[in-house]
Amino acid sequence: MSTPLFSSPFTLGILGGGQLGKMMLYTTRKWDIATYVMDKDDTAPAFEGCTVFFEGDIMDYQAVMEFGEQVDVLTIEIENVNVQALQDLEDKGIAVSPSARVLNLIRNKAVQKQFYLDSNIPTAPFQIHEQPILNHGKDYPFIWKSAEGGYDGKGVKVIRQESDLTDLPQVECIYEDMIDFKLELAVIVARNSSGDMKTYPVVEMEFHPEANQVEYVVCPARIDDAVSEKARAIALEVSAAYDHVGLLAVEMFLTKNGDILVNEVAPRPHNSGHYSIEGSVTDQFEQHVRCVLDLPLGNTDSTVAAVMVNLVGEEGHTGNVIYDGIEDILAMPGVTPHIYGKKQTRPFRKMGHVTVVDKDVAVAREIAAKVKDRIKVVAED
Amino acid sequence: MSTPLFSSPFTLGILGGGQLGKMMLYTTRKWDIATYVMDKDDTAPAFEGCTVFFEGDIMDYQAVMEFGEQVDVLTIEIENVNVQALQDLEDKGIAVSPSARVLNLIRNKAVQKQFYLDSNIPTAPFQIHEQPILNHGKDYPFIWKSAEGGYDGKGVKVIRQESDLTDLPQVECIYEDMIDFKLELAVIVARNSSGDMKTYPVVEMEFHPEANQVEYVVCPARIDDAVSEKARAIALEVSAAYDHVGLLAVEMFLTKNGDILVNEVAPRPHNSGHYSIEGSVTDQFEQHVRCVLDLPLGNTDSTVAAVMVNLVGEEGHTGNVIYDGIEDILAMPGVTPHIYGKKQTRPFRKMGHVTVVDKDVAVAREIAAKVKDRIKVVAED
Repeated sequence: MSTPLFSSPFTLGILGGGQLGKMMLYTTRKWDIATYVMDKDDTAPAFEGCTVFFEGDIMDYQAVMEFGEQVDVLTIEIENVNVQALQDLEDKGIAVSPSARVLNLIRNKAVQKQFYLDSNIPTAPFQIHEQPILNHGKDYPFIWKSAEGGYDGKGVKVIRQESDLTDLPQVECIYEDMIDFKLELAVIVARNSSGDMKTYPVVEMEFHPEANQVEYVVCPARIDDAVSEKARAIALEVSAAYDHVGLLAVEMFLTKNGDILVNEVAPRPHNSGHYSIEGSVTDQFEQHVRCVLDLPLGNTDSTVAAVMVNLVGEEGHTGNVIYDGIEDILAMPGVTPHIYGKKQTRPFRKMGHVTVVDKDVAVAREIAAKVKDRIKVVAED
Repeated sequence: MSTPLFSSPFTLGILGGGQLGKMMLYTTRKWDIATYVMDKDDTAPAFEGCTVFFEGDIMDYQAVMEFGEQVDVLTIEIENVNVQALQDLEDKGIAVSPSARVLNLIRNKAVQKQFYLDSNIPTAPFQIHEQPILNHGKDYPFIWKSAEGGYDGKGVKVIRQESDLTDLPQVECIYEDMIDFKLELAVIVARNSSGDMKTYPVVEMEFHPEANQVEYVVCPARIDDAVSEKARAIALEVSAAYDHVGLLAVEMFLTKNGDILVNEVAPRPHNSGHYSIEGSVTDQFEQHVRCVLDLPLGNTDSTVAAVMVNLVGEEGHTGNVIYDGIEDILAMPGVTPHIYGKKQTRPFRKMGHVTVVDKDVAVAREIAAKVKDRIKVVAED
């Protein structure tokens, strides 16, 4: 890229002002890259720290067009954006990463699953339906997933019997085999527009049994080197198939017989990479910025083992947030809380995360359990 | 502290909007702590990323009073502030760290040197004069230092003969023995208002021979463990003597016969601690924020060896800044540039720094030399 990016009139645009956008701003501030953010909520986490904040709906065609025309490079921090506007901005010569093409291949889970099948990427067997059907021929239990709009456990349900199918929303969906997995893994792949690619180490995701949200991310995953190499190789295949620019977070199942199946992907920084702020030479947010600006990729190696704990709102608490116990966790060794800046908590809302680092991943995981136990995201009385 | 700090109405104030203030804001954003910044220049590095920016002169009594009355805790990023206003704010019950008392003991180098002598802290022999005198009885060469206002090589001169004394400013000054040192070292001490203290590892400062500015900071310093322990112990003594709250960066000479002499201190984050953003479990800016908010201190251990390179404006270049070669250094392993966001460069102006990390400090130092060689801070044609 011949335009100077640093302390110059060059402008990066981010659609979405959530925590992922906020954490990208750490890099754009570090490099003094002018960055505009659009979100419909002017109390969004990325309101502070951007150069100019635009209040606007990222699902609205006109709003995205007007925003995109003011920047040199446009990226996203969430997939739910007006993709037609991105396509039209690309056609006008704005650099958009990830592209409208890639977003169209990823945003709809039916399209995403079909893409894996067509690209010979291992994934759990599935059926696609325009709406839930009863006459499916699958063995129970299996997983129903809404094709669009689902995240963090929403739009996903375990179907144990026919009656579980009767009250589902009448929208496009997939029926997917329930995989008897040993572990859930993730690999983040970085790719710039020159085509350079790098993978981050394999991480292990531990889920909260009820909320179906990731509770801990452990880096490195406690798996054999052979499994790790296989997971990184599959992630690179997925990345190459999409031909994306930016990060691609690839979530995978490690089955009990050692197979790896791709579950889903996200074309952006991802919860499974938050540990990298403290744990990696180049964190995922800086790496995403490097990719979309077509800069050389940074070193993805870890400097230290890290465990990330998600901070979600406690059940039964809605209102002005209080981080009860945060001073106690600040006294634990190697603990860094991240507070996203959402003023209101509600049950299971992602309010922040905590990274724990230690030379020994087992020690970090133990401290992470203490962190989880001690800090509670509650509402003011 | 019983007030909730995170995502709450609590407000931290920072006097000064330079790069040190900017880097403190990385922590206040991470923790969603509302932070006001005052600087007379609204293009200052910390303009973006603070909650509210106040355009005002931090040397002006009234401006500092009005600013300080709007915050719960007040800190500084530079010592040249109106200390009388800080004293009066403390008297009104605002928590000010470092305190007016500590700033008064540090800002004037004659007072600082006398304090070392009174506190039995080893320091180079010196004389204090109301203004330069010719009849001093010292052997040449020695060092002249202006008592106030000097930094980065300004206000310091090697006196080799009597005639070097004739064109000096007629201000209070010290005449100090020129120490035949082996290395210049620094130790950062963190201390919160509960009195908890921690030291960072000893770093080695390599100076640019002409500009008298630090060119490289190497962590850990390439010294024996015994010297390292001694340096950390002396830094703790200095910290205890000042009874400060916040960081105290202690610069020291390691003499050729193994003695350690304290050169000078700064009561705030310091250039010698910039490496900690990439190299330490808890970086110095987060640590300073922890101290002034009386939070538990973070872990000061390094996760990886680090070498910091200062980026200063090239000689002969004044105008809109260009970071020539920055894409080349981004391709080097473990390299993270920091661009402070000053739009105008001039010779020797501090424009940014670069951190290089590696498991092996010698490798990091080699890459740092390549970084120094490749990147040039120049002006637009």
